Amino acid sequence: MEALEQKILDEGTVLSGNILKVGSFLNQQLDVGFLLKMGEEIGRIYKGDEITKILTIEASGIAVAVAAAAVMGNKVVFAKKNKTSNVSGEVYSAKVHSFTHGTDYLITVPKEYIKKSDKVLIIDDFLANGNALIGLIDIINQAGAEVVGCTCAIEKGFQGGGDKLRKKGYRIESLAVIEKMSAEGIEFRR
Amino acid sequence: MEALEQKILDEGTVLSGNILKVGSFLNQQLDVGFLLKMGEEIGRIYKGDEITKILTIEASGIAVAVAAAAVMGNKVVFAKKNKTSNVSGEVYSAKVHSFTHGTDYLITVPKEYIKKSDKVLIIDDFLANGNALIGLIDIINQAGAEVVGCTCAIEKGFQGGGDKLRKKGYRIESLAVIEKMSAEGIEFRR
Repeated sequence: MEALEQKILDEGTVLSGNILKVGSFLNQQLDVGFLLKMGEEIGRIYKGDEITKILTIEASGIAVAVAAAAVMGNKVVFAKKNKTSNVSGEVYSAKVHSFTHGTDYLITVPKEYIKKSDKVLIIDDFLANGNALIGLIDIINQAGAEVVGCTCAIEKGFQGGGDKLRKKGYRIESLAVIEKMSAEGIEFRR
Repeated sequence: MEALEQKILDEGTVLSGNILKVGSFLNQQLDVGFLLKMGEEIGRIYKGDEITKILTIEASGIAVAVAAAAVMGNKVVFAKKNKTSNVSGEVYSAKVHSFTHGTDYLITVPKEYIKKSDKVLIIDDFLANGNALIGLIDIINQAGAEVVGCTCAIEKGFQGGGDKLRKKGYRIESLAVIEKMSAEGIEFRR
């Protein structure tokens, strides 16, 4: 998505530790007008595919998923990163290693919100090592539902998580794939 | 908002500890079509008011804020509940006591995302004791910006947080105010 690549070049900052800061529009500040354009692009990618639910993960993933759902008309379910006291009943869970924070966490989704008949599109903000996606796919598999595809706004292609999942046969359609990045510049995959 | 009151009656469950579970549309599952209707209602409430930014708090608040921003055209900033390694630079912070989890946490917003000239609408999913709102108001005050109003989807009126803030002169416009609730039923404020 060319407009997203331009937005990353205009507003993104590369920090040490392979971190791309896009807090001005995708993370801590949300440029909702732009998110809706990303939602339209996601709608175009999956036009003709039957999707019954969008699955994402808190916190920044929620914004992208809600923007896509506003265009596509689906319900969104988000995985929580900790089991909290107001999640009652049985949950699906998976362990995820966080690249950004260097720790493991448990993601949970109440069983009632993913049915065996669901055709699920996974949406997240970033794809790096793919660990969050693997956890979300695991949860969809536990439910016996179908993974239609995974779309992340920004894939850090050089970290290999997306390609590893593509090799396993998953449909990974990121809106922008970064091939190389440093303080000197950002290069996108063509 | 009558449609929201009906939705709470249809899909909400009252759990012990004054918890209202509305996970099917507002928390872990997001009925985005309905959230957009709530966004339209928020747009009607603040029609004629100058608002430059919407401030919310992760995680469920993000969905309501993005839905409102999709209608109103504003940017959203969300407060994080912990300082994370990819928040660089200076942040505003406030301590908040969580009613649901019984613990204190620190909320942070990067200083660059709230300017002195901002006229800020606060949006959240729930208003109970008002502690999250007090923390968010504190952050807006630290920035020297203006609090236009606070809108939460569901106010648990019997916990008093909303009325306490109204007495202090803040404009608190919740979409549904619960006066009484128990396993037997839910009563709304008229």
